[in-house]
Amino acid sequence: VLSQAVRNPIDAGADPIDVKAILAQMLQMGDEGHNRNRAGSALTLRELAPSLVVVDAPLSDVSDVLRFIGGNEHFFLNLGMPTAKLALDAARDVPGSTMLTVMARNGTDFGIQTAGTGDRWFTGPANTPEGLFLGDYGPEDANPDIGDSAITETYGVGGFSMAAAPAIVRFVGGSVPDALATTERMYQLTLAENPAMAIPIMGFRGAPTGIDVLKVARTGWLPQINTGMAGRVAGTGQVGAGLVQPPQECFEQALVALAEAARV
Amino acid sequence: VLSQAVRNPIDAGADPIDVKAILAQMLQMGDEGHNRNRAGSALTLRELAPSLVVVDAPLSDVSDVLRFIGGNEHFFLNLGMPTAKLALDAARDVPGSTMLTVMARNGTDFGIQTAGTGDRWFTGPANTPEGLFLGDYGPEDANPDIGDSAITETYGVGGFSMAAAPAIVRFVGGSVPDALATTERMYQLTLAENPAMAIPIMGFRGAPTGIDVLKVARTGWLPQINTGMAGRVAGTGQVGAGLVQPPQECFEQALVALAEAARV
Repeated sequence: VLSQAVRNPIDAGADPIDVKAILAQMLQMGDEGHNRNRAGSALTLRELAPSLVVVDAPLSDVSDVLRFIGGNEHFFLNLGMPTAKLALDAARDVPGSTMLTVMARNGTDFGIQTAGTGDRWFTGPANTPEGLFLGDYGPEDANPDIGDSAITETYGVGGFSMAAAPAIVRFVGGSVPDALATTERMYQLTLAENPAMAIPIMGFRGAPTGIDVLKVARTGWLPQINTGMAGRVAGTGQVGAGLVQPPQECFEQALVALAEAARV
Repeated sequence: VLSQAVRNPIDAGADPIDVKAILAQMLQMGDEGHNRNRAGSALTLRELAPSLVVVDAPLSDVSDVLRFIGGNEHFFLNLGMPTAKLALDAARDVPGSTMLTVMARNGTDFGIQTAGTGDRWFTGPANTPEGLFLGDYGPEDANPDIGDSAITETYGVGGFSMAAAPAIVRFVGGSVPDALATTERMYQLTLAENPAMAIPIMGFRGAPTGIDVLKVARTGWLPQINTGMAGRVAGTGQVGAGLVQPPQECFEQALVALAEAARV
């Protein structure tokens, strides 16, 4: 049903859904695009609904699809992550560039790649997030940092744009001033402010975008990720959400490799 | 189509749409519920969509209805205003109460009523809003303050909750610090903070609610309304949006009447 709703309007000559425009609107609607996607999901449903109702499928199925999308406030994350991934892949393979193109974690290791060092990974042991837990889960149930979703922070949203989403502190922990201070601090680690991603409470400054290995080394600060916490026992699913940082050594290794590449 | 979509689920035993819950969510999603209703409109569409698609109507009509709702970011205002009106009517006729139950304007006069003085109006000449204009319109095209929508401010949203909606300054004028300062100032004019309407950026303080004639008199400050501007020539429609305040004399008259009522 979803496939038809996306493709039929395009086949009929309409523009595809503009995911970057939804991301830009989300940042003005209390989402940061990693752990808060409520506005983005509602806007996506708003865009899809008129096409959904005219697909070739039983109406009860269409109604179920609308209820499913409406009932999952992280629906947009499935669009936001690949948007970030595609944008960052476009920044790959720029000789000498110290900008990060990936941050990812597999539950034991945290890895980064830079635009100047191709597909080489620089890794260190994954930290365990600190935050708030669902139901009766506690810190002992949380696995070290895991998943691909830190691509959102690599793109400048998520933890980097927490100032846009002060309500998220009730989900990942911390205070509202912490959220504002985090975005302020991330400007010190990044190469640019994305003019397409304005954060109203920061006086409409763009999201802090393009993590720079050099700036991380110079400031001694680390990128701030807000993330879901997976259970330590396989099959448990999500046990909470919190805040986590990459291990410093990823950046130290990347800096050495970039310096070596510059000498060649 | 809309009528069926609202009534059919209730007839089938489902709960009606919880408009107050949507208002509470909006304030965490960059809306203030008077001139910014983008999140509220999308959330309302999200709630209605599954029921809309199974009404007894041609699917092309249903698709048009979804497109119409999705294309009007003020759709929710049609629900938010009566919500505020009903809540404030519940506060009527409390002897001795200095709380406002209405602020309304008809394009020439601005009027208020209080809980302690029944349906008696206290009026003064309507001011003209200052703000931003649509297209080629300018200040000379704007009519003095007009309409029922200041019921939203009387309820604690709109101008009173501008801190929740910093992006609105691009629509009504002013700066982000002004928006924060306005809500901060409105706490000085109101009797309570509505715990159901938390404003994240204010550290989750509730919306400043229940305008008190005494507090207006003591502080010398006036309620802040943000509003659409109607054209001075009948039939023009909206020419802009801006900020406006009631005339001081409404409050002076109300204070005298409340004092007289207390003497009886």
